[in-house]
Amino acid sequence: MVQINPCFQSLKREYIFPIIDDKLADLKRDFPHAEIVNLGVGDISLPLAPSIVKAICDATCEMGTEEGIKGYGPSCGYPFLREAIAKNEFAHLGISAEEIFISDGANSDTVNIQELFCQSAIVGITDPTYPAYLDACLLAGKKTISLPCREENGFFPEPPQEHCDLVYLCSPNNPTGIAMNRSQLKKWVDYALREKAVLFIDNAYEAFITSPDVARSIFEIEGAKECAIEFRSFSKSAGFTGLRCAYTILPKALKGMLDGKEQPLFSLWTKRQAIKFNGAAYPVQKGAEAVYTPQGRKETQAQVQSYLHEAKRFLTALKELGHTCYGGIDSPYIWWKTPPQKSSWDFFDLLLKQCHMITIPGRGFGECGEGFIRLSAFSTPQKTTLALERIRRL
Amino acid sequence: MVQINPCFQSLKREYIFPIIDDKLADLKRDFPHAEIVNLGVGDISLPLAPSIVKAICDATCEMGTEEGIKGYGPSCGYPFLREAIAKNEFAHLGISAEEIFISDGANSDTVNIQELFCQSAIVGITDPTYPAYLDACLLAGKKTISLPCREENGFFPEPPQEHCDLVYLCSPNNPTGIAMNRSQLKKWVDYALREKAVLFIDNAYEAFITSPDVARSIFEIEGAKECAIEFRSFSKSAGFTGLRCAYTILPKALKGMLDGKEQPLFSLWTKRQAIKFNGAAYPVQKGAEAVYTPQGRKETQAQVQSYLHEAKRFLTALKELGHTCYGGIDSPYIWWKTPPQKSSWDFFDLLLKQCHMITIPGRGFGECGEGFIRLSAFSTPQKTTLALERIRRL
Repeated sequence: MVQINPCFQSLKREYIFPIIDDKLADLKRDFPHAEIVNLGVGDISLPLAPSIVKAICDATCEMGTEEGIKGYGPSCGYPFLREAIAKNEFAHLGISAEEIFISDGANSDTVNIQELFCQSAIVGITDPTYPAYLDACLLAGKKTISLPCREENGFFPEPPQEHCDLVYLCSPNNPTGIAMNRSQLKKWVDYALREKAVLFIDNAYEAFITSPDVARSIFEIEGAKECAIEFRSFSKSAGFTGLRCAYTILPKALKGMLDGKEQPLFSLWTKRQAIKFNGAAYPVQKGAEAVYTPQGRKETQAQVQSYLHEAKRFLTALKELGHTCYGGIDSPYIWWKTPPQKSSWDFFDLLLKQCHMITIPGRGFGECGEGFIRLSAFSTPQKTTLALERIRRL
Repeated sequence: MVQINPCFQSLKREYIFPIIDDKLADLKRDFPHAEIVNLGVGDISLPLAPSIVKAICDATCEMGTEEGIKGYGPSCGYPFLREAIAKNEFAHLGISAEEIFISDGANSDTVNIQELFCQSAIVGITDPTYPAYLDACLLAGKKTISLPCREENGFFPEPPQEHCDLVYLCSPNNPTGIAMNRSQLKKWVDYALREKAVLFIDNAYEAFITSPDVARSIFEIEGAKECAIEFRSFSKSAGFTGLRCAYTILPKALKGMLDGKEQPLFSLWTKRQAIKFNGAAYPVQKGAEAVYTPQGRKETQAQVQSYLHEAKRFLTALKELGHTCYGGIDSPYIWWKTPPQKSSWDFFDLLLKQCHMITIPGRGFGECGEGFIRLSAFSTPQKTTLALERIRRL
């Protein structure tokens, strides 16, 4: 019988969502009329912005006309979108439209990017982490080094003593909600240049940055074009989780070694995408382009501000109640320390049973997530009010 | 410096599209007013059907309302679409909605499916072939066995003497345009059951089947649920090349061996998709659902009939002119034998220069494609008339 990829056996982590679903089903059975407040999964809670709706509908109608037929698009994205991103996001950083690759989501790109590198590449991954990075490494049989993020180090590790070939860094971070400042990022760029490593910078939450000392792109840091790939997404910045559009910035200056010769990763990624990916949907790319119109920008920025406002309400109220919380300033996520003697799951259960609230136990993001829960502020004013009323009665 | 995946060096085939583009640019320079007829790339030439346009616009507008917010969808697709496919395509074959996985394209699935299997799996690939299958095997470092498809064997190979763990079979075939009949398919199912192999059946052109002895699904063949995965797409059957929606049928009965124990591939693919893919766009899935409404079916079937009609016009006219052609009956592709002493590229050049027509040299699909060109009948009546007038003057 055909042999399965043995790396599937390495996927041993606890899959928390099915467990959460079971606990939720129990609650609904016991309290069929409970109004449950879901602050678990990091997903949008506001409707798609009108400018984006219009752009998608217009593009779809265009496809229904003789003159507007759109078949296969370029696998790396339509020039109109690559150029809009280059102009609006990266003009001051010298990143060209060609260095921007459109995809169907940052999740896809952050895991697929590994295919460019040899199997023996050692991958540094923070703990806690967005689980897909680690699972993708395990599935590819790559060796990983854990980079612990704890209260003591401000939830961002210093570069390690050991050599890594590749390092995943998510900032503003999911799940902790904390962003690295420029000097922290610079240490990582220095490390990567010294170790000849490549940094994978997951910057999907860039739109939420409010702190002036937090870089909006790794490419603000000198030398980053020789050692970093940045991932961004329209998912959280413009409500695209159900539409699927993201982009990856892969500078032409970034190189790897193939058969003893330096090769630009740019060309290899172009080739990989041409083989394995046929581009994002045309109407969705037109929707993403609309984010850069004055009206689209106004509407999407208002959504981000609204989520940040909810984050602030949670943060302020929880601190007033004596809780210890991190994040929530440059991010929609709050990293909430559990009360003494309570594990992640204990506190999750307490909030579920007594507040009818769903959160995510930090343990689900790695061992170092133990002792915390992640609260998502992708909330609405009503939901936040309801959640806070219940938390106050705890 | 970080080491690149050494398998990138194995990607040695001639990339024909850049060469075609260069030749086309030369032609346009020499004949700036030439009206070029593109019958090369297999891409749609009719506008998106009105029912699909409406469904996508409705779904997008829905996402713009409080009640209709759609965030992350299920990574294996929305139940409404999986159920519509199960009911409309597979009710008589006992395939359940759960066994149908929605994706952003058959290209993605046909290459990503390899990740389920161990690196030492031996992969049988026809020659000529859709190039992505082979490139993906090479990138994964998998050993391939070539299965030649020539005039002598009716362009479909008998199962080989050697053992394969995995076999790619595209029927109706791209590029030859020929479909396997039931007894040919049965031989492959028997081979797979005997060798404990898994067949990857690329059935993206199922909508074009007209011959009664051609199965519309591999699952019409007894035993196939224990040895086959089928890939289908809305790309060609409903004009979705620019929208990206396809599906994979992975029966629960299909198993592989992991650490000495039989495991359903179904569960592993579910896990793989959950890690690496966040689902197809919601409005696009609603568009695909509309294909199964009475009006949607009528509109999309009319498009397929139109393409098949153009194929028939080409086939009839070319045969009348004394050319040898295959395919075009269960497929929009015609496999056109080059005149004596002319290579694929010679004939391509002749058609480009004298008829201002773009085709694809068969050589671009593999060594056994030499001596043929692929002509795509994703044409319009006007384009076909123009092309045939020019071919008659050759």
